[in-house]
Amino acid sequence: MTIEYRVADLSLAEAGRHQIRLAEHEMPGLMALRAEFADSQPLAGARIAGSLHMTVQTAVLIETLTSLGAEVRWASCNIFSTQDEAAAAVVVGSGSVEEPAGVPVFAWKNESLEDYWWTATQILTWPGRTDGAGPNMILDDGGDATMLVHKGAEFEALGAVPAAPQEGDADYSHEYAIFLDTLRSTLESEPRKWTDIAAGIKGVTEETTTGVHRLYQLAAQGKLLFPAINVNDSVTKSKFDNKYGIRHSLPDGLNRATDVLIGGKVAVVCGYGDVGKGAAEALRGQGARVVVTEIDPICALQAVMDGYQVAALESVLAQGDIFITTTGNKDVILAAHMARMKHQAIVGNIGHFDNEIDLAGLARIPGIERIEIKPQVHEWVIPADGAEGVEEHSVIMLSEGRLLNLGNATGHPSFVMSNSFANQTIAQIELYTKSGQEDAEGNREYGNEVYVLPKILDEKVARLHLDALGVELTELTKAQAEYLDIDVAGPYKSDQYRY
Amino acid sequence: MTIEYRVADLSLAEAGRHQIRLAEHEMPGLMALRAEFADSQPLAGARIAGSLHMTVQTAVLIETLTSLGAEVRWASCNIFSTQDEAAAAVVVGSGSVEEPAGVPVFAWKNESLEDYWWTATQILTWPGRTDGAGPNMILDDGGDATMLVHKGAEFEALGAVPAAPQEGDADYSHEYAIFLDTLRSTLESEPRKWTDIAAGIKGVTEETTTGVHRLYQLAAQGKLLFPAINVNDSVTKSKFDNKYGIRHSLPDGLNRATDVLIGGKVAVVCGYGDVGKGAAEALRGQGARVVVTEIDPICALQAVMDGYQVAALESVLAQGDIFITTTGNKDVILAAHMARMKHQAIVGNIGHFDNEIDLAGLARIPGIERIEIKPQVHEWVIPADGAEGVEEHSVIMLSEGRLLNLGNATGHPSFVMSNSFANQTIAQIELYTKSGQEDAEGNREYGNEVYVLPKILDEKVARLHLDALGVELTELTKAQAEYLDIDVAGPYKSDQYRY
Amino acid sequence: MTIEYRVADLSLAEAGRHQIRLAEHEMPGLMALRAEFADSQPLAGARIAGSLHMTVQTAVLIETLTSLGAEVRWASCNIFSTQDEAAAAVVVGSGSVEEPAGVPVFAWKNESLEDYWWTATQILTWPGRTDGAGPNMILDDGGDATMLVHKGAEFEALGAVPAAPQEGDADYSHEYAIFLDTLRSTLESEPRKWTDIAAGIKGVTEETTTGVHRLYQLAAQGKLLFPAINVNDSVTKSKFDNKYGIRHSLPDGLNRATDVLIGGKVAVVCGYGDVGKGAAEALRGQGARVVVTEIDPICALQAVMDGYQVAALESVLAQGDIFITTTGNKDVILAAHMARMKHQAIVGNIGHFDNEIDLAGLARIPGIERIEIKPQVHEWVIPADGAEGVEEHSVIMLSEGRLLNLGNATGHPSFVMSNSFANQTIAQIELYTKSGQEDAEGNREYGNEVYVLPKILDEKVARLHLDALGVELTELTKAQAEYLDIDVAGPYKSDQYRY
Amino acid sequence: MTIEYRVADLSLAEAGRHQIRLAEHEMPGLMALRAEFADSQPLAGARIAGSLHMTVQTAVLIETLTSLGAEVRWASCNIFSTQDEAAAAVVVGSGSVEEPAGVPVFAWKNESLEDYWWTATQILTWPGRTDGAGPNMILDDGGDATMLVHKGAEFEALGAVPAAPQEGDADYSHEYAIFLDTLRSTLESEPRKWTDIAAGIKGVTEETTTGVHRLYQLAAQGKLLFPAINVNDSVTKSKFDNKYGIRHSLPDGLNRATDVLIGGKVAVVCGYGDVGKGAAEALRGQGARVVVTEIDPICALQAVMDGYQVAALESVLAQGDIFITTTGNKDVILAAHMARMKHQAIVGNIGHFDNEIDLAGLARIPGIERIEIKPQVHEWVIPADGAEGVEEHSVIMLSEGRLLNLGNATGHPSFVMSNSFANQTIAQIELYTKSGQEDAEGNREYGNEVYVLPKILDEKVARLHLDALGVELTELTKAQAEYLDIDVAGPYKSDQYRY
Repeated sequence: MTIEYRVADLSLAEAGRHQIRLAEHEMPGLMALRAEFADSQPLAGARIAGSLHMTVQTAVLIETLTSLGAEVRWASCNIFSTQDEAAAAVVVGSGSVEEPAGVPVFAWKNESLEDYWWTATQILTWPGRTDGAGPNMILDDGGDATMLVHKGAEFEALGAVPAAPQEGDADYSHEYAIFLDTLRSTLESEPRKWTDIAAGIKGVTEETTTGVHRLYQLAAQGKLLFPAINVNDSVTKSKFDNKYGIRHSLPDGLNRATDVLIGGKVAVVCGYGDVGKGAAEALRGQGARVVVTEIDPICALQAVMDGYQVAALESVLAQGDIFITTTGNKDVILAAHMARMKHQAIVGNIGHFDNEIDLAGLARIPGIERIEIKPQVHEWVIPADGAEGVEEHSVIMLSEGRLLNLGNATGHPSFVMSNSFANQTIAQIELYTKSGQEDAEGNREYGNEVYVLPKILDEKVARLHLDALGVELTELTKAQAEYLDIDVAGPYKSDQYRY
Repeated sequence: MTIEYRVADLSLAEAGRHQIRLAEHEMPGLMALRAEFADSQPLAGARIAGSLHMTVQTAVLIETLTSLGAEVRWASCNIFSTQDEAAAAVVVGSGSVEEPAGVPVFAWKNESLEDYWWTATQILTWPGRTDGAGPNMILDDGGDATMLVHKGAEFEALGAVPAAPQEGDADYSHEYAIFLDTLRSTLESEPRKWTDIAAGIKGVTEETTTGVHRLYQLAAQGKLLFPAINVNDSVTKSKFDNKYGIRHSLPDGLNRATDVLIGGKVAVVCGYGDVGKGAAEALRGQGARVVVTEIDPICALQAVMDGYQVAALESVLAQGDIFITTTGNKDVILAAHMARMKHQAIVGNIGHFDNEIDLAGLARIPGIERIEIKPQVHEWVIPADGAEGVEEHSVIMLSEGRLLNLGNATGHPSFVMSNSFANQTIAQIELYTKSGQEDAEGNREYGNEVYVLPKILDEKVARLHLDALGVELTELTKAQAEYLDIDVAGPYKSDQYRY
Repeated sequence: MTIEYRVADLSLAEAGRHQIRLAEHEMPGLMALRAEFADSQPLAGARIAGSLHMTVQTAVLIETLTSLGAEVRWASCNIFSTQDEAAAAVVVGSGSVEEPAGVPVFAWKNESLEDYWWTATQILTWPGRTDGAGPNMILDDGGDATMLVHKGAEFEALGAVPAAPQEGDADYSHEYAIFLDTLRSTLESEPRKWTDIAAGIKGVTEETTTGVHRLYQLAAQGKLLFPAINVNDSVTKSKFDNKYGIRHSLPDGLNRATDVLIGGKVAVVCGYGDVGKGAAEALRGQGARVVVTEIDPICALQAVMDGYQVAALESVLAQGDIFITTTGNKDVILAAHMARMKHQAIVGNIGHFDNEIDLAGLARIPGIERIEIKPQVHEWVIPADGAEGVEEHSVIMLSEGRLLNLGNATGHPSFVMSNSFANQTIAQIELYTKSGQEDAEGNREYGNEVYVLPKILDEKVARLHLDALGVELTELTKAQAEYLDIDVAGPYKSDQYRY
Repeated sequence: MTIEYRVADLSLAEAGRHQIRLAEHEMPGLMALRAEFADSQPLAGARIAGSLHMTVQTAVLIETLTSLGAEVRWASCNIFSTQDEAAAAVVVGSGSVEEPAGVPVFAWKNESLEDYWWTATQILTWPGRTDGAGPNMILDDGGDATMLVHKGAEFEALGAVPAAPQEGDADYSHEYAIFLDTLRSTLESEPRKWTDIAAGIKGVTEETTTGVHRLYQLAAQGKLLFPAINVNDSVTKSKFDNKYGIRHSLPDGLNRATDVLIGGKVAVVCGYGDVGKGAAEALRGQGARVVVTEIDPICALQAVMDGYQVAALESVLAQGDIFITTTGNKDVILAAHMARMKHQAIVGNIGHFDNEIDLAGLARIPGIERIEIKPQVHEWVIPADGAEGVEEHSVIMLSEGRLLNLGNATGHPSFVMSNSFANQTIAQIELYTKSGQEDAEGNREYGNEVYVLPKILDEKVARLHLDALGVELTELTKAQAEYLDIDVAGPYKSDQYRY
């Protein structure tokens, strides 16, 4: 037998196993689901291709999915975010390095982009099935696995992979060129590979705002090839992972990267959505003065009512000590901005893609120098520019513009991820057991649309996490429930309720 | 000419006019709407029956509506909440006490329940129109004016007003008996009064959670007689008025009522919706230790993640110094709870109706004594009960269980109300100009359903308030807007977005 | 019998008595002292002249002093701060309006300056004692009573009262002229009045920073006529009253005066001592963005580390919505500053004297108009000044520049004052029983110097307040106490410890 | 020449040099002192033995001392706290590994106790001086270097080192036994070593509460052998390092050690001095519910007024998720406490010595197991104890009970240390230039006592840090300064002022 998994080392695996054991205690939602479904095994027969940061917490998710009956293959959705000891522990499982008994994981810290798309291909390529069968479920974070299948099938239908934009073109993207190369290669070797895989998939559950946005676009164009559940918009995901997870992991990333005192500094947070709210709270909690930038008047008004100055980025370049993007948008911090910052200003992204910060533009400044202070921490020395009145100074760039909480720290803590991943697990069960089925009235349960989990399941996820925090929940009396016109057991709010 | 308005006194009116002038500066949303619609007069012809706390801020709303062309009649929606100087100023307007040139206002501080339903009748009864014409718009807070019309029409159809439950009946309500008396009287004098009024109304705009809930119930039963706009669920209302307004007015009410130090005390906040969130933040901001009670596991999880203890009310009766209900539910604090509280525990409601606290039950405790410390502040002395192990002690009850920020202070401050009332004004324009119309495709614009304002208008309301707070809003570039698949001018978020 | 007290009205007194009864529950320190010294009556024979804001809380202090055996006469130390119902209740005591059995109080809300110095004279003039005996103790706030005695004796020695600076002189003070008139009058009628009084006084206990500063100056010049205890610098006074009291009463005063939303506003706090720290925390807790001004680099560094912007006042005149002085200094906000503020900026003082804000300068601006919005709230309309580029705008001045928490609200809440006043009571006992005595070694216990209470008594005051807040204090083991080289019972810290 | 320094590796040194360069920007106080004293070289001739955590920040201190003319030898004052790259960079200096041109550093991460006392000896043993000359200044943290000299001289006078308490004795200490061995060894080889060294020392500047406490004890007993400056009690040290440094480094240590979500958890902070205040603020800022334990009623009252529950440790063992000691006391968390904690409760110390937590007692529990999760993070599995009703559970112990911010993270950040170290540098200059001198009146400037820096120097340290944080300091006018009776340039407060 060939070991195809990329990460497997016993001492790493042992270290990872200790961490997984401790994390299980901090993930009461997943452990409760393991207990609830131990007998019924609702995921028996599921073959899940998972693409999500390969951390200790994800290890607990993977082992929850397998404990519910699923077969799983896994890659990370980010080239920097893998914790090698977690990957190793999952691969080895109850076996040894020579005969790992765990789950195939294709992920390691610091992948190249070529590696990355290779790993994405591996998780969708089920081995040992001569019938060409592939996965029947996707669990996605950011939508790369889903895009691979969709674009692959699209190009197979065309019979060709289009040429990539060239360097110098306005829409040139180094990564997109590699992505197309990946598909060009499979089109040659297996011309129906992605079409067949797409046909076998019952659904995808998607973790992030960005991935969900892609799914809604596909659905709107009628191009979505299978049902999708938007896990991101469960309240117990978007309001917890995005806000409370960031509150924890932003200062953690800043501290591990720079050891710079946050207190007393001016921290500029670009964006005041859930991620921005968590970021601002964390920085204020450490004694920083937070300035927010916003495009949305409602969020801007929230920021100012929460006591933050709301300013244009240009207005605070000379004051800011720390700049954090949280937007999901592109070109939020431009090279021209960084050229005007204070010496040793810290710049990092905790929103989504690395294009929130224009690193490419920064690299194009004539005479600029990039010094690696340590992995994922680089000092970019911007030379003086007499014409522009810029003096020589440097900015400290975290994680090369990718998510700094993953690149410089260990991502969200277990308890937060237990909420997100309990939603993922419930969504996988929902789609795997119901996609393709008809309901009592003969309607198809799930079409090729994007769904959110019903509120009662969202409330269930919350409920699974209360005991661990010592919460005493009050129970409605029957009379009160009638007065409010709801059920004693919930759901307690309308779907529009904003929390 | 007979002066029919109840409040008109020149020195009061002058004091009120000063306060209105200052408040206008704090209500930039309303002032911007006055400027925007000065010429077009979109409410010309509108006859608005308004039922909403008659405060200084409401005076600015009323005068905004009239400056847009409307005729208005007004009552308060709460027997304690009127600020007499504001009412007087509105009545007198640019006139004198003898010849007031302002708006008829039927409201004064400390109305009886009989008064209250009389005033509600007055605002819906347009004088001097022999053709029986009444109002064509309702602006409502809590839904009492809307209920009067609906129940009135219902009983007119039946030809009779049903008998009220009697004292001792489980569903006995003193107020409901008075309400039925009111309708019984009009059925006798004008047997088609409410039916005719209902027929003339183009729509209602409703301010509160509770009122909106009633509207959805009517719509679901097919009984809603005209279109309704749910102003409460505009983000710039529910997330501002409910949260930031309460954050301001809860400590204000507590302080004016009791002068008791909040710092260091244990404050129990029942409910962690938007009102509860604002209440908890305010109390913590004053140095109290806040304990939250909740029925909804998601809100409970939010509370604990925000650093609050979440406990059953029973668990903290002996620790709590201040108890505040914020739920919209009934029977949240029962007499049996109050019997177990500490001596001089403060009890108040800032949620909705006075039935959040079981005052009736409290009054039924044998031997209980009620001492008026000052208006709206009563000490209830609960005698020792050997059987129950209760020692003699008192609770301090605010505003007799009605909204303490209105009863003990002056309600929400102007700036918050400018947000809510800009939504109200826009909603009045929307319904008045479009209800009954057909759109381009020939569909009726508004049916007898409950609508929320489109997000772009919600964002507009926010936008009108930014300058006053010194906010610099960032503008999307075209490329960024395309990347996000939205318009540069908004709306910026999906309807499901939770803020 | 002639009723010489100025305030005595039965309905007022009854209202005051209710409030005093509730306040007693919130003043556990004073009530514990009443219990501890009920039998020993350590103040029997003491004749205390008290000059301190005549509020409900002071009423509890006065009745604590009398319950320990003292005779007391009282005036307020501020012309606006008296709560008439509290004064009335104290005067009436257990008697009736015709035959009051309480304490002579010379205080009412809104005294003139002439009234003020008359009341100060009254409390020091003990009636019915033909031997000329006066008070033997002073309890002072701000030092006015002490100054009256010292200056009186000084001028009696000179045989003349000097002429007051005239209007137009650099050091002209309207109040000082009235003060001199007061002494001129007594010099004529009783030429040894103050000399005799001074001789009879065993000591003074002083409440405030300002009063203490005057005492240290007198002591340094060798002019202090009797021992003094600096109550202000007890930790349980300076760190509680100044910080936590202000945290409570600043927003209370702002709200009662203006009803303006604090959230989202820019609030400028001048000074970051204990009062400034409490002010900043309160305003932030209400969602304001706080900017601090400071002269002391250490306090400035504290402010910035606490997350506040520290700026020069000139830099933020155009941004500030609310300006609060907390410095104890003079000329902190000048007329020239106010001329540059935003329209309807709110200006108030919570530091010490009204000279923190240059009201005199404001009044001298040509064409300025002063409108009374309500008592203690004035709008000053500053006309356009083409030369200076100033547009017409107004500032809202609170309490005419005097302490806004006293003028616009009810001062510090009872619990805070229980700390301060327990220190006062203990200090009165200390001086009354020991001043003039010699200790075991034959040294005079108290000379004409300024003393602070020993730390063990400071800790005692704290200890008296813990139960009411549900605190469980940990007790040192003997081994731990030895390890720390302290006593199990305290004191726990060195005198230099900063808390 | 033999390289005697323990840490010197070029790649480490280069990494360290980058970090030192970045840290210099964050230490404006030290850099300003380098600039101010570049010419005057006030430390020329000084031979400083430094014992203080060998971190990147300390590297900047060391190089500041040398740039002012001093010769320096250095050790860490904690066996876990050395950052090897910083040590290497200091050793190598401007030289190479073969010929280091920097400062001798005797420190590496994870020393044994034997190593530790060896390094302490090395820094006090000046090489290449045949006249036996040693250091003439000590810079100490915790007082170990000072204790070594004092005890060494004491035993040399006795002619013998006493026997150590044996294992099993009540006062047995493994470390003290090693300490005595160290002195026994020098007594044999150089019987007057410490006596001679003591004679040559002009003074010591001490960093910590604990070290200062030892110094005051020595001074009180008349045993202090040279003058000492208490750096700890400079406001810019105690109120900054202790509070703001801990606020930063406590969550940093917790996160790096455990990756456990702090939000929503119950965190128990033992002690509410400056360290406890910083700890509580940090944990609350991350969304934890903080419970404080205290022995001092004043600090307890502060904690409750700041909104924290104050409880006995015994009351919250079952609720706490995280337990942090901050006391400087011993036996604060006992084995019996840990036996009652929740499963996976986290226990750490950020106060002073490792005896705050009774690790020895924990290790004595029969059947207990200690698992290393990673360096400085151990899981102690406490077996079930039927008799005591204890179920099997584990506690997570950080840094084996030593300072977790140093053991699990990188200590205080540079900016905080710039304050402390600017005090150290100024104190070194003060003692080196003035100790042994007489002042103008012929009095000895510094006797064998413990001194604090004058307030004007404390204010100077603050002043050096304001520009970097964008502070605009207000300047007193001459009139204001006179009014306050202070100098325009400071000092601004009395020595008793508490900040």
